[in-house]
Amino acid sequence: MPTELLVRPEPVRTDAEFGGLYAQVQQFYAHQMQLFDLHEAERWAATFTEDAVFSVPTLDAPVRGRAGLVANVRRNAAQQERSGEQLRHWIGMLDVRPGRDGELLTRAYALVYVTPRGGASRLLRVCVMEDVLVRVRGKWRTRHRLVTRDDLA
Amino acid sequence: MPTELLVRPEPVRTDAEFGGLYAQVQQFYAHQMQLFDLHEAERWAATFTEDAVFSVPTLDAPVRGRAGLVANVRRNAAQQERSGEQLRHWIGMLDVRPGRDGELLTRAYALVYVTPRGGASRLLRVCVMEDVLVRVRGKWRTRHRLVTRDDLA
Amino acid sequence: MPTELLVRPEPVRTDAEFGGLYAQVQQFYAHQMQLFDLHEAERWAATFTEDAVFSVPTLDAPVRGRAGLVANVRRNAAQQERSGEQLRHWIGMLDVRPGRDGELLTRAYALVYVTPRGGASRLLRVCVMEDVLVRVRGKWRTRHRLVTRDDLA
Repeated sequence: MPTELLVRPEPVRTDAEFGGLYAQVQQFYAHQMQLFDLHEAERWAATFTEDAVFSVPTLDAPVRGRAGLVANVRRNAAQQERSGEQLRHWIGMLDVRPGRDGELLTRAYALVYVTPRGGASRLLRVCVMEDVLVRVRGKWRTRHRLVTRDDLA
Repeated sequence: MPTELLVRPEPVRTDAEFGGLYAQVQQFYAHQMQLFDLHEAERWAATFTEDAVFSVPTLDAPVRGRAGLVANVRRNAAQQERSGEQLRHWIGMLDVRPGRDGELLTRAYALVYVTPRGGASRLLRVCVMEDVLVRVRGKWRTRHRLVTRDDLA
Repeated sequence: MPTELLVRPEPVRTDAEFGGLYAQVQQFYAHQMQLFDLHEAERWAATFTEDAVFSVPTLDAPVRGRAGLVANVRRNAAQQERSGEQLRHWIGMLDVRPGRDGELLTRAYALVYVTPRGGASRLLRVCVMEDVLVRVRGKWRTRHRLVTRDDLA
């Protein structure tokens, strides 16, 4: 059970400040997921910090650093080129909490949809995504990501 | 037809104030749904008012008050423990309107996804959710919820 | 590839202003899609500008102007009345960028769910939706919409 859901620090922001923060994080994920699905490898990797750790059950070991992230997207792109499938990654039910030193801790649901060329779209996967976000030169970046899959839970 | 969609009072807030309000409601639902799917019965029930009324087609009669809400989550938890299924509740297309006396009236779509352990995820249900929210000691709470299912419409 | 994703002007707004803007666009789409699914033809068409252009792959040619938009919803309503199916349109992964002269350019994912009366809900379609939004008398309106379907890509 994610214990961080159970103890929640009191909010320290005004409503409007929280609104700005929450919208930025939503915009950040929208852009990050669109770049991923477009196979924009370098631009997607640039939404992570240089030393980011990315842990997903479909990879044998966590990916560390941007070069590994880029390679991961290129493998996906090549595979989807062969299969003719378009993936779409959706984030929802986005819970945003303040962390230490200006970090943000997010916990969200993630869905993956797949559409074969000329075929019927279908739900591929239901996941939970937990991120540590940091602000680097005014822009949010993912420092750490842990994805768990409901089917492997 | 939900007539409240048809007559909409003029907005009385600044853009930034509306942004803060809308983000709070999104954050509220994200947290509420995550607690529900984690079977955190008491914490989930605490996101409703003491006298909340919860009306869903899967129950014979509306649930009234937190004790009934807690019991409902415990029944779900026991049933999913037996079946080995993980449910995920998503809220989207969130329409937020001011009501009387500082209440908020929301109308949103709700999806339920289910994943059997080791099996394929699938869409279980498409619903419409209409809430009356009130602010209690600075936190939004659901006072009244009406859920309708598209398959039973 | 949508080249507009690749060159992004620097943000010119404060966090709270961006929060207000982003929330308004989310609220706009929630309301617009709910009106569409309720077959509220005139009210839905009024969320577009008078001279709006609406381009979707399910129509032979782009629809121009509100009368055409109204007719389109009425055709959908009649068809769903016969088939007994309820459609739900979801927007997600909403990317919002400033355009020229106060316009907003959005790129989002769109899902369509369908539920037959008494039957099982299912995912019908995965799309990408690109809008040009303008503010008319304080309210956002769609001036141009381009929808692409993943299965026809």
